[in-house]
Amino acid sequence: MIERIAILGTGLLGTSAGLALRAAGFRGSITGWNRSPEQGQIALSMGAIDSVAADPLQAARASQVVLLCVPIYATLDFMEKLSGVLGPEHLVTDVGSTKAQITEAAGRLFNTPERAAFLPGHPMAGKERGGAALADAELFRGAVWLFTDDAAWKRSAQSAALVTAWRKWVVAMGAKIIDLDPARHDELVAWVSHLPQFVATALSALLEDQVGDAPELKDVGGRGLREMTRLGASPFSMWRDIAHTNTAPIEAALFALEQRIANLRENLRTPVLRYEFDKANQFRRE
Amino acid sequence: MIERIAILGTGLLGTSAGLALRAAGFRGSITGWNRSPEQGQIALSMGAIDSVAADPLQAARASQVVLLCVPIYATLDFMEKLSGVLGPEHLVTDVGSTKAQITEAAGRLFNTPERAAFLPGHPMAGKERGGAALADAELFRGAVWLFTDDAAWKRSAQSAALVTAWRKWVVAMGAKIIDLDPARHDELVAWVSHLPQFVATALSALLEDQVGDAPELKDVGGRGLREMTRLGASPFSMWRDIAHTNTAPIEAALFALEQRIANLRENLRTPVLRYEFDKANQFRRE
Repeated sequence: MIERIAILGTGLLGTSAGLALRAAGFRGSITGWNRSPEQGQIALSMGAIDSVAADPLQAARASQVVLLCVPIYATLDFMEKLSGVLGPEHLVTDVGSTKAQITEAAGRLFNTPERAAFLPGHPMAGKERGGAALADAELFRGAVWLFTDDAAWKRSAQSAALVTAWRKWVVAMGAKIIDLDPARHDELVAWVSHLPQFVATALSALLEDQVGDAPELKDVGGRGLREMTRLGASPFSMWRDIAHTNTAPIEAALFALEQRIANLRENLRTPVLRYEFDKANQFRRE
Repeated sequence: MIERIAILGTGLLGTSAGLALRAAGFRGSITGWNRSPEQGQIALSMGAIDSVAADPLQAARASQVVLLCVPIYATLDFMEKLSGVLGPEHLVTDVGSTKAQITEAAGRLFNTPERAAFLPGHPMAGKERGGAALADAELFRGAVWLFTDDAAWKRSAQSAALVTAWRKWVVAMGAKIIDLDPARHDELVAWVSHLPQFVATALSALLEDQVGDAPELKDVGGRGLREMTRLGASPFSMWRDIAHTNTAPIEAALFALEQRIANLRENLRTPVLRYEFDKANQFRRE
């Protein structure tokens, strides 16, 4: 039923989606566009897309499903532009890491019987470094793909069918779908995704000040240190939009962790330390 | 030159050392002892040791090199006992995670011409769960093995030769030796090993309170969350001694991280966020 897909943004996620769709047996056309043309050429050479589009809006109009794989503010910009040029025969979906603002815009600009559908999505997959060259057809296998759809939206039958079909392709790519309310989504990812990222950033920045001038001492930390700072390589360009669009939940999570660390620090020689280790062990029970 | 080794404590590290010595071509005898006899039997069945000793002090006397692979306070206890029963024909070495107290005891109880040598050691290797069954001949490959030896110690020629020989076996097991002053050791590992551990514990404990009752939500965090909380499974029994014997450096490192996280939290929408991401990226530059 889906025969023409446009991927706007052929970085790590967009290119991986193209590869994963092909691996899952998608035989229709996939056109791609990227702000920096080299990324589009890499996606093309990897077989993730079969053409590079010059104009993203034209590519969107010519497709049935538009997959937005750009940072959050760029996604919101595209939503404004696409709303005017697409119609009830189209579905737009995205991979943005926060969903409150995007879902609000989806209700305002899409999802009436006369307009295109917009299905807000968020695959919990990525790497600490971006770019088409790192793309992987298996990136979404076993990962959760969150949707913050709204049952109250009234879509055309045509675009509603595209929503159903896209959800099947997401499952075919190996992902596990969970549906959430957008506010609950943003609060949840503040805890399980944004908090770990910002902690890794703070830890890496602190250690750069402490031992950055002695590379041989980084080896001392071993696997534990490598894992706890891997996300320190994450690009600001992506996380800036997340920090701006999910500020309050991230502030709350960071503040809670500061207090939890202070509690450990004040109790290194009291029974509280055992309580905290036991609680942490519970989180990692199998 | 080393023909008889006693491993006191056949948990993860002790059993891995036995396996690694065999893999590196050690053909002498390796006897093992463990407080809980089952761990000794597992080490025996894995080929890490060729006999289980009933009495650790007797096993130590009958060997040339005694490798202590027990928690820090147990190591300090063994040092007191071994000092009286061993002589200049022996070397004792250990794998304890903090070195100030152990190195002080080594100077006080060992390392005269009439006494056994004690070489304070600390391989930066391990797993988040202990036990002989998880032992691995490759555990030390590529890992740093720290020593906090003291050039001022006057050892017998015999025990000094054992020190040289043991250092060669450590290299043969695949480890990279770094020599450090004990105070510098404890400060350094507070930053690159203890800080990551306690942060993982605090993060895991916090998330257990937040999402522990909804296991499906843990999947949402994906690889980043798994890595940032893997050390949350670490056992209190081991970390209690570390917290007690390296309290001040760990407190200082935790406090510095609390401040760094607070700084991020207060600057989620200012240019400071870019500065911190850039600094973190530097730590992870390749």
